[in-house]
Amino acid sequence: MEVENKHIIIKHAIDGLPTESDFELRSTPLVLSVAQGSKEVVVKNLFLSIDPYQLNRMKTCSSSQKTFAAAARIQPGQRIDAFGVGKVVVSGNEEFERDDVVVGLLAWEEYTVVRPGTTLTKVDPHEFPLSYHVSILGPSGLTAYAGFYDICKPKKGEKVFVSTASGSVGSLVGQYAKLSGCYVVGCAGSKTKVDLLKEKLGFDDAFNYKEEPDLKSALRRYFPEGIDIYFDNVGSAMLDAAVANMNLFGRVALCGAISEYTDAGKRAALDMVDVIYKRITLRGFLALDHLNLYAGFISSTSDHLRHGRMRAVEDISTGLESVPSAFAGLFRGDNVGKKLVQLTSL
Amino acid sequence: MEVENKHIIIKHAIDGLPTESDFELRSTPLVLSVAQGSKEVVVKNLFLSIDPYQLNRMKTCSSSQKTFAAAARIQPGQRIDAFGVGKVVVSGNEEFERDDVVVGLLAWEEYTVVRPGTTLTKVDPHEFPLSYHVSILGPSGLTAYAGFYDICKPKKGEKVFVSTASGSVGSLVGQYAKLSGCYVVGCAGSKTKVDLLKEKLGFDDAFNYKEEPDLKSALRRYFPEGIDIYFDNVGSAMLDAAVANMNLFGRVALCGAISEYTDAGKRAALDMVDVIYKRITLRGFLALDHLNLYAGFISSTSDHLRHGRMRAVEDISTGLESVPSAFAGLFRGDNVGKKLVQLTSL
Ligand SMILES: NC(=O)c1ccc[n+]([C@@H]2O[C@H](COP(=O)([O-])OP(=O)(O)OC[C@H]3O[C@@H](n4cnc5c(N)ncnc54)[C@H](OP(=O)(O)O)[C@@H]3O)[C@@H](O)[C@H]2O)c1
Ligand SMILES: NC(=O)c1ccc[n+]([C@@H]2O[C@H](COP(=O)([O-])OP(=O)(O)OC[C@H]3O[C@@H](n4cnc5c(N)ncnc54)[C@H](OP(=O)(O)O)[C@@H]3O)[C@@H](O)[C@H]2O)c1
Repeated sequence: MEVENKHIIIKHAIDGLPTESDFELRSTPLVLSVAQGSKEVVVKNLFLSIDPYQLNRMKTCSSSQKTFAAAARIQPGQRIDAFGVGKVVVSGNEEFERDDVVVGLLAWEEYTVVRPGTTLTKVDPHEFPLSYHVSILGPSGLTAYAGFYDICKPKKGEKVFVSTASGSVGSLVGQYAKLSGCYVVGCAGSKTKVDLLKEKLGFDDAFNYKEEPDLKSALRRYFPEGIDIYFDNVGSAMLDAAVANMNLFGRVALCGAISEYTDAGKRAALDMVDVIYKRITLRGFLALDHLNLYAGFISSTSDHLRHGRMRAVEDISTGLESVPSAFAGLFRGDNVGKKLVQLTSL
Repeated sequence: MEVENKHIIIKHAIDGLPTESDFELRSTPLVLSVAQGSKEVVVKNLFLSIDPYQLNRMKTCSSSQKTFAAAARIQPGQRIDAFGVGKVVVSGNEEFERDDVVVGLLAWEEYTVVRPGTTLTKVDPHEFPLSYHVSILGPSGLTAYAGFYDICKPKKGEKVFVSTASGSVGSLVGQYAKLSGCYVVGCAGSKTKVDLLKEKLGFDDAFNYKEEPDLKSALRRYFPEGIDIYFDNVGSAMLDAAVANMNLFGRVALCGAISEYTDAGKRAALDMVDVIYKRITLRGFLALDHLNLYAGFISSTSDHLRHGRMRAVEDISTGLESVPSAFAGLFRGDNVGKKLVQLTSL
């Protein structure tokens, strides 16, 4: 059977704030079959992950691309790989059969031909909503879990600050921190988000950073006893303000720097004398280095979900054509929780 | 017996580059005796340590002083405590007797009355020159040892960059790095210093940073395979350049930021996206947190000295009146190796 496989591409490198017009929907014919012995698996995509880091792969050039994305760079016109959950349509790999539900690196397209060497994992389609395997039980979840437990090394009673706290990663970091007996304050970019943090996600406090003219003194108000752990998703001025309010032996998990993704001129200007005297550790990390924690992450997080101790916050758009606005919206703060695009249902 | 005890004070807070005229030599009478049961020890000072960090205690106010030096702040007119080696003149403490040679927190003065609670340690005055107990076997040595081994966690073959490499701490970091089988490049501020690094201290290479208009490309030349470990003594632009040239999983020991001590406007502006993708760790540390390593540090370093595998580089001025120029000289790069002032001999 042949189908028209719609996919999303970038028209050109994107260096500033992305907009819908930077993208295009294209379509190419795809035969839903695999060559004998090819080990390929054709997946019909159900939910696709929409992630800020993709923007770093779309730039003309950036220092990070030297190390990260010489290979990972997205060229105009090229398919854009992305994590997702899908259903096997046809399989040349004996580990998978038709109708298996799988998660792994798919792409911003309707069907993905998964080549051997790409990790694809079967999931139980019954216990949790399928989208959870892309959000709370997917890479965002592992990022929050590994970053919080392995990089921040929390102790009970410590004071934790999380930025983009209502986002995919941030909303989970805050919940793990509460489960660890920490005091947690988050910041986010709207009243709706702040209310969510305080009323639904159990944060001890939260504030709208866009209404704070002076971030340093805002954090002094929210943390009169100082910050022990800062889970940084934004970089630049917020990072400076958090470090200025940190306690001795404070730890900063450098998870993301979204405010710098769209504006490379924005930089933190840390007071290193302060960092030294306070013996602060700042550590950049990528979730993919922490796959050794995967089994523990899945079992504990599933358990928290089963017992109602955690909740997934998801923001789902429908149809492949909504990918550009879903993606551009990340940088406008449109999303509340994990941004996903649903293409079809099981 | 009563003596005139000369001491050095600051006349006012010092916020920029220190100069000799910021200091004054004063004198107060001191009776060389201790009250019955007081446990005090009167020490005649032999060598005093001259350290850049003292400047941070002399400032009007700095963010670091909130944590570090509310108590440690040096007020105008006040005696200025400093590490040193001296000889016991009179002791009310049964652990010490007259003529014992001791190291510990003394002050920029001729005699120091050491009160109970201040750690004073007896040293063997015969095996090594007395000055070594302030330099290579003193706090500078522990800083280099703890910072390099505990913070940088070197592996054989790794590429190490050290700034202020001919200085007290830097010259030792480079030597430890060579002893650990690393490739080591240092930077310093003059040809004499660069020659010392290459010809006497076994650095694989060295350069004069003052002759490099573009630090990033200089480091690219000296580290074509990238930097694994950066031992940072200067902060600001050099830190940026080093991080830009770091390899995946690079480690930065934030030991000092001397270029920022005299100019709080100077700041590193790290590319956090790069720091994240390269999974770099930056860690501020103070030697005094690593006293658990003290015994191992002393025994291994003494052993290296005995076998000629390490050498102490010292820069000694004579007489208490030379303290102000010795200190101000640190910030002009006058010193080659550990800066000490010798007051008298045994
Ligand atoms: N290290 C890793 O392995 C790893 C893995 C996944 C994600 N990440 C990083 O983690 C961060 C969060 O990712 P996520 O998937 O959870 O995204 P998200 O938080 O769900 O969505 C992005 C959010 O960032 C905020 N934002 C956008 N532009 C901003 C700006 N200029 N300044 C401050 N905030 C801004 C917006 O929320 P507000 O309305 O609150 O502004 C927006 O909703 C990103 O930096 C991402 O790259 C890292
Ligand atoms: N964390 C700790 O526990 C700890 C303990 C001790 C020392 N430290 C720090 O370690 C660093 C080195 O201390 P040290 O005792 O070994 O001093 P040092 O290196 O012996 O002396 C200071 C040297 O710094 C360099 N320098 C001065 N101003 C500079 C500037 N604006 N930019 C770049 N370099 C400059 C000069 O060398 P050049 O000619 O090469 O420029 C000068 O000789 C200092 O930052 C100090 O505060 C930290």
